[in-house]
Amino acid sequence: MADLIHLPLIEEAVQACLDRGFYAHFPESPKAYGEEAPAQGEAGFFRMLDRPFDLMQEKEDGLAGEESSPYTGKALGIQYPTFTPEKLVSRAEAARPAWASSPFASRADFLVESLERMKALFFTIAHATMHTTGQSFLMSFQASGPHAADRALEAIAMGYHQLGMFPSRVTWEKPAGKSSIRLQKTFVPVPRGVSLAIGCSTFPVWNTLPGVYASLITGNPVIVKPHPTAILPIALIVREIRKTLQEHGHHPDICQLAVDTRENPVTKSLCEHPDVKLIDFTGSSAFGDYVESLPGKTTFTEKAGINAVILDSVEDPAPVFQNLAFSLSLYSGQMCTAPQNIFVPETGIPTSRGQLRYEEILSMLREALKTLALHPKMGAGTLGAIQNQATLDRVRKARIEGKLLTDEIRVANPDYPEARTLSPVVLEVGAIDRQLFEKEWFGPVALVVKTRDTDESLDLARKLAESHGAITCAAYSRDLDTILAIEETMNEVFTPVSFNFTGPVWINQHAAFSDFHVTGGNPSGNASITDPEFIDKRFVWVGNRYMDNPQA
Amino acid sequence: MADLIHLPLIEEAVQACLDRGFYAHFPESPKAYGEEAPAQGEAGFFRMLDRPFDLMQEKEDGLAGEESSPYTGKALGIQYPTFTPEKLVSRAEAARPAWASSPFASRADFLVESLERMKALFFTIAHATMHTTGQSFLMSFQASGPHAADRALEAIAMGYHQLGMFPSRVTWEKPAGKSSIRLQKTFVPVPRGVSLAIGCSTFPVWNTLPGVYASLITGNPVIVKPHPTAILPIALIVREIRKTLQEHGHHPDICQLAVDTRENPVTKSLCEHPDVKLIDFTGSSAFGDYVESLPGKTTFTEKAGINAVILDSVEDPAPVFQNLAFSLSLYSGQMCTAPQNIFVPETGIPTSRGQLRYEEILSMLREALKTLALHPKMGAGTLGAIQNQATLDRVRKARIEGKLLTDEIRVANPDYPEARTLSPVVLEVGAIDRQLFEKEWFGPVALVVKTRDTDESLDLARKLAESHGAITCAAYSRDLDTILAIEETMNEVFTPVSFNFTGPVWINQHAAFSDFHVTGGNPSGNASITDPEFIDKRFVWVGNRYMDNPQA
Repeated sequence: MADLIHLPLIEEAVQACLDRGFYAHFPESPKAYGEEAPAQGEAGFFRMLDRPFDLMQEKEDGLAGEESSPYTGKALGIQYPTFTPEKLVSRAEAARPAWASSPFASRADFLVESLERMKALFFTIAHATMHTTGQSFLMSFQASGPHAADRALEAIAMGYHQLGMFPSRVTWEKPAGKSSIRLQKTFVPVPRGVSLAIGCSTFPVWNTLPGVYASLITGNPVIVKPHPTAILPIALIVREIRKTLQEHGHHPDICQLAVDTRENPVTKSLCEHPDVKLIDFTGSSAFGDYVESLPGKTTFTEKAGINAVILDSVEDPAPVFQNLAFSLSLYSGQMCTAPQNIFVPETGIPTSRGQLRYEEILSMLREALKTLALHPKMGAGTLGAIQNQATLDRVRKARIEGKLLTDEIRVANPDYPEARTLSPVVLEVGAIDRQLFEKEWFGPVALVVKTRDTDESLDLARKLAESHGAITCAAYSRDLDTILAIEETMNEVFTPVSFNFTGPVWINQHAAFSDFHVTGGNPSGNASITDPEFIDKRFVWVGNRYMDNPQA
Repeated sequence: MADLIHLPLIEEAVQACLDRGFYAHFPESPKAYGEEAPAQGEAGFFRMLDRPFDLMQEKEDGLAGEESSPYTGKALGIQYPTFTPEKLVSRAEAARPAWASSPFASRADFLVESLERMKALFFTIAHATMHTTGQSFLMSFQASGPHAADRALEAIAMGYHQLGMFPSRVTWEKPAGKSSIRLQKTFVPVPRGVSLAIGCSTFPVWNTLPGVYASLITGNPVIVKPHPTAILPIALIVREIRKTLQEHGHHPDICQLAVDTRENPVTKSLCEHPDVKLIDFTGSSAFGDYVESLPGKTTFTEKAGINAVILDSVEDPAPVFQNLAFSLSLYSGQMCTAPQNIFVPETGIPTSRGQLRYEEILSMLREALKTLALHPKMGAGTLGAIQNQATLDRVRKARIEGKLLTDEIRVANPDYPEARTLSPVVLEVGAIDRQLFEKEWFGPVALVVKTRDTDESLDLARKLAESHGAITCAAYSRDLDTILAIEETMNEVFTPVSFNFTGPVWINQHAAFSDFHVTGGNPSGNASITDPEFIDKRFVWVGNRYMDNPQA
């Protein structure tokens, strides 16, 4: 076996996973990649527009591509080769045996190498992400670049750890009277088969890369099927993985890209192909429920969640509303971790300077949102742009549903006059208005829900997480008993709680090696990035036994 | 936290799980339990006949019991209290929070204590097992006693290991310019909820105890629903667990027994109750498929498997046929690990003394079976008795299906003249007779399948495992390339292979801490006793975050 040069890093990453403290391998600052990198990366992006994309996958059946920039309103004009599901799956099957039988340590080493290769593309991927998802440049760079690469490294590390849990061979010797019975045993982690990763339109790399790397480290070939409106960021990565595979003597079809259009999707054909055994999915609950219902597949889904904020009591209110306003505004609420329902007791909340009345709370929230949106330096960048028309329509619909606390503010983006940029719409509703707050309003829509007290806030948040799913829950309280009750109650419905966040830490952020993204325990999804199950379900332990004693 | 006196044992057991070498905690010899124990245990069994069973579960809704002995043909006459599913589940729910919130190390310690208490019942449980399942006394003692207890200890140990994978609290500190961002984080393994364990009629303790203990260690209350014809062995254990719970200040309803009859089963009502979140099942494929199809449940099934023997080449044939005959005869083939289809090349097989012709192979197998069945000391004991009429009917049906290699021999059991004891029926079929060998003939039925060569044998074995499921595969070969091909091919369909077993080691045996019982990768079942998934799927990691910095 060739030198596994990345093994020290892998072992460090394994320890980080087990420790769950702060750890990052890929620097998240764009400045850390050298002076030339930003311009080179940007140029690389512009070179790809209005051209066919060379995926290095041969003998395509067609061409397709319908991406457009939420910033310029213009089509990217990129055409990708398309392939029938049958062709993709049979190519994956052909590549499968050699990858499955390679030692997992070699796979881990190779996969880290592929991530190191990805670094050179971070800036190009950033522009690609920006001009497909509408994320700000900085978020695009971080989320699709170092943060996604760290999540992929986390998957490699957990994979390496889980695959090494049992010895590959052992001598089993049972005392039997004066002698013993000896068997040689082997323990083989057998990969389950072809893996399909279905991407979403808002985080085409960050949400998809962990599943891709979890399947690859466990020995399964992967077919990546991005959302038709956000292909380029992940296409760049798939191509680089294929190049790296080839250079290392592996079959490039261990990783393939499946491209389709909204009008002619291939997703279900791929899902239902009998040789597809593993499916990772991020997207709507409707499609996620379909994926989970497929017999004979092992699935990992992230669906919709309705995230709550429980306001109980604060030390100093201003930083709280600043923090909340940022969480609501970041990437225009198009994050599965973004808060939506803010539960506020009608009696207001205690602060270190006395009771803050209900109306004052609403007023402070409104002002914080407005201040942020109209901030000349931070506003447009924080908000990013709206990814698609459906989200815009959703905002328009929300505006007429109820009492508006804040209306959208069209925010001018100085660099992109065509950008679909608007600040969050916040409705004010009562606890009785279930039909309004018991649904996910994906995008820059939030609801202030007036409750009787914290008990009612918590009860509503809990029920919602249990019935509709939740990925995050934010709580602000200075009372220890209340804090413990909130934690216990929300944990019972498998929802994590973040307490008293102020300053530059936002509930939207889930850090690699530390935060489990989606718990897998409520309707927001059935899997967790990256718990042991996220790895273990992708392979099967099979033990063989060999008689050792000579025959009597 | 009180002294955890069993912690050293638990840590030793964890290491055994990770090492997968030979390890046992509970002595498997009946002689190891003291001179008084056998007689006391037997007397304890007889005292229970023809009486109500005091389960220590109050306010029953009725009484039921329809067990009868495969050895005497007589009803046991034991009546058990029955409870509505609603009552059982609501009692489990009431007991759940306290158990869920107890530290997992305390649970582990308590659960080991409950196993140590079980030792005093091993002999009574053995008689109960014998007179419900038809297992021989020795198998009854070992399988329902020390082997099951070792499997339960293995589940406790794996649980302790998996639950301790991440720290319960950690400080997360990310450098941020000249200062840092600090969060306190907690990681909580939250149990999924009420767990249901559905038992089978042939191994009412061995197959059920691992799931029961896996659910208990991960903090879930358990309802045990035995097969109506094999209740007593597990009822004794459930009662003892309840007593031990009570004595240790825990709610006894953390473990309950649900009794029903074949005519009025409560299994589906329990399965479909919304508060039942985990289901362990051993039994028919039809019911197992139903269990797996239930939405909103996490399931662990062991269904039917059709186990193959591949004869390729042997050193010395006689020990091979002796070993095979024992495997086929043990407990009259009523083991999910028992071989059924013996693939024999028409050209015969090489041995160290020359080619053994096909007809000679059949003849040696027939003689070995007959010799064992009619052995005055070993015959009746090895065979045990037939558990139920359906299995007898199946044997009768098999006898007329094809060319009989060996017919059943009614074997007299000197201790039990009424015992349903008969030796295996072996049919001789061709590779073309798929409709005969592509089904599970549970019981003393085997088929010799004449093939062209080992390639065809392997191909048929593989296809059968993939389409119908297999729990074991035995192979006899002296050629290394063939051995590797068999291992690789069968492992690809997630079937373990045992090579060249002769002497007192039989494929039927799966040892605790070492052999994964059922891989969970083919249609014989979706779970494996006891891989990490068997534990991890019973709880959810939830991470909470607390802002640590003082507010700016």
